[in-house]
Amino acid sequence: METVRPTIESLQNDRIKQVVRLRDASARRKAGRFLIDGWREIELAAKHGVAIETIYFDSPTDSRHERLSIQVDLSDTTLQPVSPKVLERISYGQRDQAPVAVAITPQFELQRLQWQAPQIVLVLDRTEKPGNLGACLRSASAAGVAAVILTDPVCEPCNPNTIRASRGSLFTVPLAVTTRAEFQAYSRHYRIPSFAARVTASTELWDQDFTSGGAFLFGSEAHGLDHDWFPPAPNNGLHHDFIIPMRGSPDSLNLSISTAITLYEAVRQQRTI
Amino acid sequence: METVRPTIESLQNDRIKQVVRLRDASARRKAGRFLIDGWREIELAAKHGVAIETIYFDSPTDSRHERLSIQVDLSDTTLQPVSPKVLERISYGQRDQAPVAVAITPQFELQRLQWQAPQIVLVLDRTEKPGNLGACLRSASAAGVAAVILTDPVCEPCNPNTIRASRGSLFTVPLAVTTRAEFQAYSRHYRIPSFAARVTASTELWDQDFTSGGAFLFGSEAHGLDHDWFPPAPNNGLHHDFIIPMRGSPDSLNLSISTAITLYEAVRQQRTI
Repeated sequence: METVRPTIESLQNDRIKQVVRLRDASARRKAGRFLIDGWREIELAAKHGVAIETIYFDSPTDSRHERLSIQVDLSDTTLQPVSPKVLERISYGQRDQAPVAVAITPQFELQRLQWQAPQIVLVLDRTEKPGNLGACLRSASAAGVAAVILTDPVCEPCNPNTIRASRGSLFTVPLAVTTRAEFQAYSRHYRIPSFAARVTASTELWDQDFTSGGAFLFGSEAHGLDHDWFPPAPNNGLHHDFIIPMRGSPDSLNLSISTAITLYEAVRQQRTI
Repeated sequence: METVRPTIESLQNDRIKQVVRLRDASARRKAGRFLIDGWREIELAAKHGVAIETIYFDSPTDSRHERLSIQVDLSDTTLQPVSPKVLERISYGQRDQAPVAVAITPQFELQRLQWQAPQIVLVLDRTEKPGNLGACLRSASAAGVAAVILTDPVCEPCNPNTIRASRGSLFTVPLAVTTRAEFQAYSRHYRIPSFAARVTASTELWDQDFTSGGAFLFGSEAHGLDHDWFPPAPNNGLHHDFIIPMRGSPDSLNLSISTAITLYEAVRQQRTI
């Protein structure tokens, strides 16, 4: 059964202070907990198996927790009403008095993902900006990829700004966090074809055959993919470079746009197989 | 010949105060001037015919204005060195001590654009957010559209955040600002086919024939396109709806991503004609 507590009104409350600390990445790592802002995002997380410990919400203004509780199982969740002032503090400048949930950080293990052709997997290497990561996750979710794999991410997936930019679609896509070396071993094991957009490639996006499925590699915003991603011959038979034709300067498409265009082209090609 | 002035060091300088005021939309409208942050953006603007009145830059730290002056004609531009403190004030919180230019706002007249098949024109109706508008302009530039037309824009194209988000590509694409009614009259005159992404459409993006070219209509972030955009039969023979297939919720692609995916699909189809 759901647990509902008396309203917390004090900014000095120890639990409130702990929640505020979770806005900080190192505190999240230490606690193994992260924050989810907004009913919609909390609902998506809960529906996809994320364990929600506590939801802090403005009662009685916000009665939507009742609607939410119908949609997903919150039997192990504490519903904690707080005053508007307290909610504002833990919302960290977010408007709308949206609720804030404390959730247990998933393991994001690579090994639970078993690739098989012609699945499409998005691999994002060392992505730096939470907003970009969130936008890529949102597009990946829309395109219906089998998984997103983050290698050596600078920005952790459970950064609140990533979750917000993804509109919660972060939770709807199988997600793994690993290193480049581990991903490459995994990729060899499953013999996963890989594809990378490079300005030096000669094959245009639309002429590259994506019907086999595979791993679509995108590097960091600032540096792209480094050379370690490109295996020397004769081991590179499974890797293909392509170019997204662009007018203007070569950096005229950003990471999330390049990702979306590429994934949708792969979806288009796979429609007919 | 270029005019270089003595360094301005006072925040109380009247011209500096005027520049700061141009961060405000109503002041820009009144003055018929706008601001461009960054050498790259200033250069793109100048190369594409925007009249640059004055460039405020940090001298002697920033000597790149010399390089810039080689690339574009700044014979009618005042190069105005300012102290780091003054530059910080007029940069409005931008990092990197990038220069700030005062430029004359172009007219953005619709009538100078003469559509002909199979040109692709991006039409953005009532776009609200500068970042989204900038991202759309950047993708439109990369896709090589013939023009971008803004109807009843909530956010003006010369908003500094739009320019920044567009990476200056705003200046590389023929741009018009008009009303919906005027655009529709224009569209009838040239008999421009139009296309709109709608969740109610039955034709998938890839099955829609874009080889005729035409106007690609995208509504505001919050409200999409209203009914006035969709002419009643029998006058709607030139209009086509299509749907971008999405997993997850129908809003799972944002405006700039939907725009980019659609424009690139049109480019793909037109490759072979």
